Amino acid sequence: MNTKPYVIGLDLGGTNSEFGIVDQNAHIVASTRVKTAGHGDINQYVDDCVAALQPIIEEVGGIEKIHAMGIGAPNGNYYTGCIEFAPNLPWKGNLPLAQMFSDRLGIPVRLTNDANAAAMGEMAYGAAKGMQNFIMITLGTGVGSGIVVNGQMVLGCDGMAGELGHVIVEKGGRQCGCGRKGCLETYCSATGVVRTAREILEKTDKQTLLRDIPLDKIESKDVAIAAGKGDEVAKSIFEETGRILGEACADFTAFSSPEAFVFFGGLTKAGDLIMDPIKRAYDENVLQCFKGKAKFLVSELDGAGAAVLGASALGWEAK
Amino acid sequence: MNTKPYVIGLDLGGTNSEFGIVDQNAHIVASTRVKTAGHGDINQYVDDCVAALQPIIEEVGGIEKIHAMGIGAPNGNYYTGCIEFAPNLPWKGNLPLAQMFSDRLGIPVRLTNDANAAAMGEMAYGAAKGMQNFIMITLGTGVGSGIVVNGQMVLGCDGMAGELGHVIVEKGGRQCGCGRKGCLETYCSATGVVRTAREILEKTDKQTLLRDIPLDKIESKDVAIAAGKGDEVAKSIFEETGRILGEACADFTAFSSPEAFVFFGGLTKAGDLIMDPIKRAYDENVLQCFKGKAKFLVSELDGAGAAVLGASALGWEAK
Repeated sequence: MNTKPYVIGLDLGGTNSEFGIVDQNAHIVASTRVKTAGHGDINQYVDDCVAALQPIIEEVGGIEKIHAMGIGAPNGNYYTGCIEFAPNLPWKGNLPLAQMFSDRLGIPVRLTNDANAAAMGEMAYGAAKGMQNFIMITLGTGVGSGIVVNGQMVLGCDGMAGELGHVIVEKGGRQCGCGRKGCLETYCSATGVVRTAREILEKTDKQTLLRDIPLDKIESKDVAIAAGKGDEVAKSIFEETGRILGEACADFTAFSSPEAFVFFGGLTKAGDLIMDPIKRAYDENVLQCFKGKAKFLVSELDGAGAAVLGASALGWEAK
Repeated sequence: MNTKPYVIGLDLGGTNSEFGIVDQNAHIVASTRVKTAGHGDINQYVDDCVAALQPIIEEVGGIEKIHAMGIGAPNGNYYTGCIEFAPNLPWKGNLPLAQMFSDRLGIPVRLTNDANAAAMGEMAYGAAKGMQNFIMITLGTGVGSGIVVNGQMVLGCDGMAGELGHVIVEKGGRQCGCGRKGCLETYCSATGVVRTAREILEKTDKQTLLRDIPLDKIESKDVAIAAGKGDEVAKSIFEETGRILGEACADFTAFSSPEAFVFFGGLTKAGDLIMDPIKRAYDENVLQCFKGKAKFLVSELDGAGAAVLGASALGWEAK
C-alpha cells in the first residue's frame, strides 16, 4: 500500500492537456486542463501546467500527498522520459518532459506513449484487469497499440515497441504518413474509414446516404450513423475495416498469444458493426491451435477520463 | 549459485532424442541418444530414455548432482509440460512428458517448444548472451521462433506464443501444412526454398546448375551449393527468400523492437547469400524510428550440441 494516496495523470494530446488527480480506487478526485496547441515554448508550457496544477494539488492536501505523476503522450519513450519527434505536437525534437515536470514538482514522473498508457489503465482499472497477456489497440486518427506480456509492457530495446498500426497489411497499398505504404492504420483508423468511404463514392455509383455529405467533409462517425440506419455501403465499409483488422490480429496472436484484444477509441462506437467482422476474420485466419482462445473486448474506460486514468496508472509504478 | 552442478538437456526430434549432461559453463560433459522414431508406446520410450541416462548420470556422480532436466520438443507447452499434438512425433494427443520424466528421475523437469529452447540456449550461452529483447528464428524444415521480451520467454496465455513461421506474408499464397495459405514458412524454410527452386525450374527455361538434379530430389543445400558457385538462378532464390524474411522481420520489430534477430538452422549455412538480402529488405521496410537499431546475427551454438544446450538452459530455470 502506498502511503501517499494520490497520483497525477496527464493525457497530453495535440489540442489539450488533461490533468487528473487520481486515488487508489481509480477515482479522479480533481482535474484541470491546459491548452497544448498554441504553446510554442516547452518551458512556458510546463510552467503553465504546474501553475494550473497548484490549486488542485492544494485541494487534496498538498504535494506531500502525491506519490508520483504519469504522462501518456504521442511518441513518448518510457526509458528516456522524452517525447521523441511527435508530428502532432507544437514542439520539435527530443523533449525531456518527465524530467522537466519532476524538477518543478519534486516527485517522480514516468512517461510513455498514449497507447501504452491506455493499456496500463485497462490493466489497472478496466477490461484487462488481472490479465498477464493482452493487446490494446487504439482506433483513433491513427492506430496505436500497447502490448502486455507476462504482466509487463512490451517496450523493446529502445522504448518504442508496440507500433502495430504500422504493420504492413497490404503490400504497395495506401500511402501512410510514416512514408511507407499499406500500413494497418491507413485502413483501420478513423482516417482509414474515411478513405475507404471516399474511394467507394468516387469509384462506384453505388447509392448511399453518404452521398448527402460533401466528399471532403465525411467523417468516420458519418459512416457509423449511416451504417446504423442500415445503409449497405456504410455497413460494407465497417465490414471491410473489421476484416483487415481481424486478419492482422490473427498474425499478432502468432506473436504473443494474448488472452484478449482490447479496443479503444472512436471507431469502437460502431459496436457490433465493426466488432463482428473483426471476430469473424480472426476466426477464419488464426492458426488452428489458437482458435477460440482470445477474447475481443471494448475498453471499459471509454470516455473523457480514460486516458488520464491510463496515464495515472503509470504513476503508481514509480518507485 | 546452484549447489547441484549439472542439468540434463533433451533435444527431442522426430528421428532421434539427444541427451546431454551440461555443467554451468555450458559444457556437455556426457551424452547419449535414443531413437524417437519406432517407439510407438510413450511409456516404453520414457523407460528406454531413463535406462540410457543411468550410466551417464552415474558418470557425473549420481542423480543428486543433477539440478533438473530441460526438454525442447516440437509443440512443447511450457505451462503444462505437455507435448500437444505434434505432427512429426510417433505419439498422438496430449502427452505429459515433463511429468513422466520427473516421476521416473525424481528431479524437476521443464519442457518447451524447440524454438523456445533454442532461444534460451542463445540467451544463456550464445549470440544473445545478456540481451533482454531478441527474436530467435529457426530456419529448418519449417520456420520456428522464440521471442524474448524483458529477459523472459514470450509464452502467451496458453504457452503457445511465438509461431512466427505462421504469420501470413502472402495472402492466398502457398498452401501451408497448417491448412492456411501464404504462411512465412511456406517461403522461408528449407522446404520453401525447394518449392521456389521447383517453381522456377518448371515455369521458366532459365539456365541453371539446378537442372542437373532431378526435380523431386532437389534439397535446399543443393541451392546453396549452386549459389556458392555463382549460379544466378540459385542466387536469386536466396535473394527472394531473404527479401520475404527481411520484410517479415520489419513487421516483427513493430511488435517488440528487439535488440537482435538471431537465425539458426540449415539455411543460415548459405551465409551472406541469405543474410544480406534479409538485412537489405529489413532496412527498406522497417519503420523510420527503428532503422539501424536491430542486429542480425547467426546462432553461435550452431552444430550438434546446440539444441541440447538450449534444452539444458531450461533446466537451470527450474526451482
